[in-house]
Amino acid sequence: MKNFALIGAAGYIAPRHVEAIKTTGNNLSVILDPYDGVGYIDKSFPQASYFSEAERFDRHLYRHRDEIDFVSICSPNYLHDAHMRLALRNDCDVICEKPLVLKLEHLQSLRELENATGRKINTILQLRYHNAIIAIKQKYKDTNKIHKINLDYITPRGTWYKYSWKGDSDKSGGVASNIGVHFFDMLTWVFGPVESFEVENGALYSKGKLKLKNAEVDYNLSIDAAHLPWSEWKAYRCIKVDGEELEFSDGFTELHNKSYQQILNGKGYGLADIEHTINLIEQIRNE
Amino acid sequence: MKNFALIGAAGYIAPRHVEAIKTTGNNLSVILDPYDGVGYIDKSFPQASYFSEAERFDRHLYRHRDEIDFVSICSPNYLHDAHMRLALRNDCDVICEKPLVLKLEHLQSLRELENATGRKINTILQLRYHNAIIAIKQKYKDTNKIHKINLDYITPRGTWYKYSWKGDSDKSGGVASNIGVHFFDMLTWVFGPVESFEVENGALYSKGKLKLKNAEVDYNLSIDAAHLPWSEWKAYRCIKVDGEELEFSDGFTELHNKSYQQILNGKGYGLADIEHTINLIEQIRNE
Amino acid sequence: MKNFALIGAAGYIAPRHVEAIKTTGNNLSVILDPYDGVGYIDKSFPQASYFSEAERFDRHLYRHRDEIDFVSICSPNYLHDAHMRLALRNDCDVICEKPLVLKLEHLQSLRELENATGRKINTILQLRYHNAIIAIKQKYKDTNKIHKINLDYITPRGTWYKYSWKGDSDKSGGVASNIGVHFFDMLTWVFGPVESFEVENGALYSKGKLKLKNAEVDYNLSIDAAHLPWSEWKAYRCIKVDGEELEFSDGFTELHNKSYQQILNGKGYGLADIEHTINLIEQIRNE
Amino acid sequence: MKNFALIGAAGYIAPRHVEAIKTTGNNLSVILDPYDGVGYIDKSFPQASYFSEAERFDRHLYRHRDEIDFVSICSPNYLHDAHMRLALRNDCDVICEKPLVLKLEHLQSLRELENATGRKINTILQLRYHNAIIAIKQKYKDTNKIHKINLDYITPRGTWYKYSWKGDSDKSGGVASNIGVHFFDMLTWVFGPVESFEVENGALYSKGKLKLKNAEVDYNLSIDAAHLPWSEWKAYRCIKVDGEELEFSDGFTELHNKSYQQILNGKGYGLADIEHTINLIEQIRNE
Repeated sequence: MKNFALIGAAGYIAPRHVEAIKTTGNNLSVILDPYDGVGYIDKSFPQASYFSEAERFDRHLYRHRDEIDFVSICSPNYLHDAHMRLALRNDCDVICEKPLVLKLEHLQSLRELENATGRKINTILQLRYHNAIIAIKQKYKDTNKIHKINLDYITPRGTWYKYSWKGDSDKSGGVASNIGVHFFDMLTWVFGPVESFEVENGALYSKGKLKLKNAEVDYNLSIDAAHLPWSEWKAYRCIKVDGEELEFSDGFTELHNKSYQQILNGKGYGLADIEHTINLIEQIRNE
Repeated sequence: MKNFALIGAAGYIAPRHVEAIKTTGNNLSVILDPYDGVGYIDKSFPQASYFSEAERFDRHLYRHRDEIDFVSICSPNYLHDAHMRLALRNDCDVICEKPLVLKLEHLQSLRELENATGRKINTILQLRYHNAIIAIKQKYKDTNKIHKINLDYITPRGTWYKYSWKGDSDKSGGVASNIGVHFFDMLTWVFGPVESFEVENGALYSKGKLKLKNAEVDYNLSIDAAHLPWSEWKAYRCIKVDGEELEFSDGFTELHNKSYQQILNGKGYGLADIEHTINLIEQIRNE
Repeated sequence: MKNFALIGAAGYIAPRHVEAIKTTGNNLSVILDPYDGVGYIDKSFPQASYFSEAERFDRHLYRHRDEIDFVSICSPNYLHDAHMRLALRNDCDVICEKPLVLKLEHLQSLRELENATGRKINTILQLRYHNAIIAIKQKYKDTNKIHKINLDYITPRGTWYKYSWKGDSDKSGGVASNIGVHFFDMLTWVFGPVESFEVENGALYSKGKLKLKNAEVDYNLSIDAAHLPWSEWKAYRCIKVDGEELEFSDGFTELHNKSYQQILNGKGYGLADIEHTINLIEQIRNE
Repeated sequence: MKNFALIGAAGYIAPRHVEAIKTTGNNLSVILDPYDGVGYIDKSFPQASYFSEAERFDRHLYRHRDEIDFVSICSPNYLHDAHMRLALRNDCDVICEKPLVLKLEHLQSLRELENATGRKINTILQLRYHNAIIAIKQKYKDTNKIHKINLDYITPRGTWYKYSWKGDSDKSGGVASNIGVHFFDMLTWVFGPVESFEVENGALYSKGKLKLKNAEVDYNLSIDAAHLPWSEWKAYRCIKVDGEELEFSDGFTELHNKSYQQILNGKGYGLADIEHTINLIEQIRNE
């Protein structure tokens, strides 16, 4: 049984990590979040210690560094790299949400600390465990054609979004970084690296064309309800490969669990796997 | 259709209010919480405005005071009275979580402002709408005996509780005020006013004896897992009247909806209904 | 002796208000600031109550509304109007720093509340008490010419400024609103109202031309050290009227005291005096 | 010229560090404080970078670890050890305010990290550079008697103190730790280690007897104005050795500069020098 610490425990995605820790038979021993609305933890790990301040959490981590194996990180994107350094320096392995970092240069310090500490950073690339994605990866693995991809993902957000860290590009990286990163990783995993791109970004959307080794991608990401094809407030998601729609509506719930299982088996995705996507989202942001 | 504002939208109990607003066919037009993790709102009221600062919220409320009918308040207990004043001064009626206030003297300023503004403060006394409680109220309504009540409620909380506002007696009022208030209201509603009491308070518990007009109550409230009758981390709740256990495990989910319906029908519980319980929790706290 | 409350007591300008309260022989009875670094108060008013939360401060103010006469407001600009409403609703007169509000429409709610409560809002227009300014007001009072004004004010700020509320245009209004407001008030006070303007705004500067009834103003405001005429980090201030430089380097220290004296004598500047300048800074901001 | 970082730059004591950095001919290159009221820095080091978040500061420090030599720490006491670890892990030497830490066990992790990183922690023991103290150290250096010391230090604080971190014993350590530490260090430096003690602590005071190798100390520390020997709000400080009062009212202003000079000369006081005093304040706190 491994012991986990969890940074960002009050956030939206944290319960998936708590569940993955539990499902894989491990223990959550300590959580950190400046916001104390973390009562949901009690159902799974009522004994977990709680800290609202990173400094006191660091003291705890240092003191228990021989017992704590992993630090899972769900904090706002711009804090990921500092929290990973905190974990590595306290002799813990890392499991970090996407996007791992917002700028390519931030990877360098992490690589150095991985080497210096002998610890591993694992990233959550859950779509790579989705059956539909695995199937298309298999289907196109030997392709040498240029496929035509259409990706539409309109997932509206209320007014709170704009005033949260997610709506602050300095903190979230913007729509392409915060929401697009999943798809960019998935598409390059299947169709090869980005060769060129042309994009347009707004506060509420990012759209454009990506030329990959084996695909031309037209993408359209938005959190603006005005972009929905219907009047209902419901996400619209459509991926087409050569005009054929990918069935992609289910199968998301278990992906964090699968990610954790692979990581615990020593097969997690690491810095090298994510580097080209971090490079891409940074470049898209700077267009 | 009435328009609502909601203060404390990120907190634990807020989703019950959102649901009650929706179920009763009304509209949530604006929310306030310093913590921006309020994305759940989008499922019900994606158009709601969001504020993280009370000052900007006040400006909005003032400007829309002709459109906003009710302000629902789920903020930490010690802020209730200030938030009620904010609502009344902007010409809104109030629906406020329990305990309405922590000290009897705070009721006085609210009473004055109700009179000055012609607006009404409604409090959530949801147990009074619970079928089991209505049944015993009916059963004992003409009693002239002194019944023997045993109340045990052990609802354990993780370590986060201690560091949250709920664990700070200045902010929550402590266990008797924050958790006991429901039961004290319910018991006095059924068995009449408190005549005397003898209690003992700790950071994690409150226990003692209350002499009501028609009952002698032995109560035992705790958030300490060590007080549970079992090793599992699961709440223990037991109310006995003259040795007979009250069936009381279900029927909680709809109570906020019922409270809202009554309030919207002009039959909400107000300051006069809650005064004796506020007096009681203040006195218990000061023991 | 009047009793004062002070909102924003930890900020840069607050000590001037504390001194003015003391110099005019009055008492500071309570202060509010979310930041608790307010120990300097002890030298003047060690008995002052302290609050870090506006809600608890409101409770105190309500309870002591018969004793507290004035609320002085030094909070960030965008909070001024909410804090003034808080004061008026608790039956206090107001002394508020500049710019009183950031938008003309905010004045309207204040005017309504002044009328409803019978309380008065006073604003700090300290340059109108500066001897050099009084002298030019006198000198040009009967002019019917169009004078040529050159105004340069380069007052560099360190990197912290950008990350403080002052560097956030939504909170401070930007350079023209936060720094320029003094000069715009002073110039229109002397040379009459604005008839037209042409401006250019950046994050660190605002410059342009104002056509007043009796003057053509070329102004140049900046907080960027690169705009200084010298290499030293020292403010550069130069006002020329028809080519003649106005002696303007001293005489600032007593201006808050004079403002307070006038206000206490019932001769404070109010909403009507500030309206045109608020209108101007809003329009300049929106260029 | 050495480059400095400063943590806690908005706090009360930080300007002494800024001045010491300047006086010793060095450069302040970056500051950290969650509160952005740090404009005073501009007079001395207008080019200093500013951070409000420890995480972003850590990124900066890591990136500039080859340029930044020292991290000076003026944060609230309970954060000192985490901030020292942050500094050491980024290859910087440390200059930390008193009390260095609140518990003896916290020293251990710091000692380990000093060894692991080859960096040095220096503490500010400024009274050891005060001429009056140096004189009595000299005077009693060969004593073999038990001297009688009376120490009274009544330094009143306003109501804000109670609500600041200084009034929270978990954060400041309480009166003996936060205010007494200077005197405990000074007395043991002159008269030898503590052999036994008997103390009484309140929220606003600490008093008692310390038996040192060569002295019996009666001390009386208080921040309660009611303990002053006069009605004025003015600190009362009196140290008597064998009935003779120590002249001790001046000579404080230069002590941070002297501390810095010694540290820069490689003669700073380190963990070994402070260990017994940390042990003492922890024991006094737990009485």
